[in-house]
Amino acid sequence: MNTSTVLNARSIDQAGRRISLLGNIDDKPAILLVERAAFSTYDNALESLAWSLRSVHNLGVNDIYSWFMACSGQVSADTEVSSDVKINLIWPCTPKHITKYSAQGVRNVTETPQIYRDQVKPYMQKNRDDGRLNWIYDILEGRAEQEDVMHRRVSDEDAAENEGFMLLPDLNWDRKTIASLHCLGLCERRDIWSLRDLCKKHVPWLKHMRQKLLDATTKLYPALEDDQLKLYIHYQPTYYHFHIHVVNVLSDPGSTQAVGKALNLENIIDQLERMKSDDDGMHDVTLTYTIGEASDLWLKVFEPLKRESSKRKRDELTGT
Amino acid sequence: MNTSTVLNARSIDQAGRRISLLGNIDDKPAILLVERAAFSTYDNALESLAWSLRSVHNLGVNDIYSWFMACSGQVSADTEVSSDVKINLIWPCTPKHITKYSAQGVRNVTETPQIYRDQVKPYMQKNRDDGRLNWIYDILEGRAEQEDVMHRRVSDEDAAENEGFMLLPDLNWDRKTIASLHCLGLCERRDIWSLRDLCKKHVPWLKHMRQKLLDATTKLYPALEDDQLKLYIHYQPTYYHFHIHVVNVLSDPGSTQAVGKALNLENIIDQLERMKSDDDGMHDVTLTYTIGEASDLWLKVFEPLKRESSKRKRDELTGT
Repeated sequence: MNTSTVLNARSIDQAGRRISLLGNIDDKPAILLVERAAFSTYDNALESLAWSLRSVHNLGVNDIYSWFMACSGQVSADTEVSSDVKINLIWPCTPKHITKYSAQGVRNVTETPQIYRDQVKPYMQKNRDDGRLNWIYDILEGRAEQEDVMHRRVSDEDAAENEGFMLLPDLNWDRKTIASLHCLGLCERRDIWSLRDLCKKHVPWLKHMRQKLLDATTKLYPALEDDQLKLYIHYQPTYYHFHIHVVNVLSDPGSTQAVGKALNLENIIDQLERMKSDDDGMHDVTLTYTIGEASDLWLKVFEPLKRESSKRKRDELTGT
Repeated sequence: MNTSTVLNARSIDQAGRRISLLGNIDDKPAILLVERAAFSTYDNALESLAWSLRSVHNLGVNDIYSWFMACSGQVSADTEVSSDVKINLIWPCTPKHITKYSAQGVRNVTETPQIYRDQVKPYMQKNRDDGRLNWIYDILEGRAEQEDVMHRRVSDEDAAENEGFMLLPDLNWDRKTIASLHCLGLCERRDIWSLRDLCKKHVPWLKHMRQKLLDATTKLYPALEDDQLKLYIHYQPTYYHFHIHVVNVLSDPGSTQAVGKALNLENIIDQLERMKSDDDGMHDVTLTYTIGEASDLWLKVFEPLKRESSKRKRDELTGT
């Protein structure tokens, strides 16, 4: 194949692991889609993988974490090759790391307003009481990670309106590739734990936050316009202090943007706006989302509920 | 590194292109995350890619489409290697293929009820009038692709309730890997073009459809339970005949499940249920979503609207 033109060369398709080439075969146009294959999961192949890595070069080290690029497979010594695998090494690792990187089942669950009120909200409360938000307060109050703060709008300017927020890079963003831009807007107010606390009365605040986040991002990255950014909220979120995700519309969506986890901020604003009174809000809707089987919410709330409901159905069938 | 245990070996992380290995280094546990790297996008590297493919073997051919596995990079002849790239060849290809696989900008747009009524609905109408749904009617009426139909529930049984539907494999599903299961529930009724046509009065029908789709899928794949499936709707959809996506909660989310494109079916049902009267519905909400810059909706509806609004703002500023 004679590839005369490269299509989509700056593609971020599947995080750059798929490219499309345009060329000719026998004078007729052809498209060649080349993508990195899945790893073979036969036991032998996996076991030999760590042994077969060649031309390993280090990209960086930070405490127990280090990064490398390498070549998989056997390569003859005299040829020039480019790296085809990226490697993260965690050493020594803890049991927590092992759980995090082990295969985990996932369930789709439905949280009614009642389940939220009786079980999920108390769980959130406990989670907050455990001091799990201290790292956020450290950032908000300037005690930690100040070098990471991309934009800060202090609420003192207009404290009454609770408008303070910070723009931070998401942990998974490399902080330089605009096409995969992923930031977090962390609000200063502490009364909103999650999506569930949003009411109709928060609509002006949400709209204001939305515009300020867009302004801050496009000011930092002038190549981007408002409509090249997408804003969403996680439910369940990783931590119970309200924050908004800001991503480039071109970014590889992955699980952070997946339906069942991410909810479009604008659609939520519209839903709130159409509610009747100021105190109507997301505490009163039914939300369906996915959670890991190893999560506390599955183990302590939804799995017991499922078991109960199966038992009830069985009892009804057997007439007991 | 001595890899004693394989973690997440059946991982579908990033479509199997990332695996986690647990092992030991100097008697301390280590996690090694290996993932296929992005292709190098230097012009030279791309141009040489098509030339450097080795050990190409054909997986199948269908008309102008063919599939292969191959090894990238230079490999010495005497070593056994496993394929590291997957290749699709389209030959000869048409200009339509070229547009489809070219890099395309994306925009986040907001469709108000008025924009829907005045511009998007007429566009849908035209799209339907152009005969673009003929392939669906061919399937529904048994004239085509009958070998692909996984489950059919004919509406004749209870025609009044419009309950007919078909379960089909999504084009991008390999039809065998349960972890990446992706099916489409195609309803027989033709009066619902998209999400926009759903009203409060459709809630019982939607709930019924939802359960029938779950039943059909778990009957075909008994390893799956209801709560291991996720149901969603696209807006904008690819074609204007109402259909529901059914995926394994474990499936690699990618762009098909991304916020800004996919909406959780259960959340939509809840939103409809909370509306006031039977004819209230999704035609009356504001929806924000992402579309390609090459799409007709961007070129003919949203881009002109954006230009107009910029001009208005400019005029206001200059006082003309």
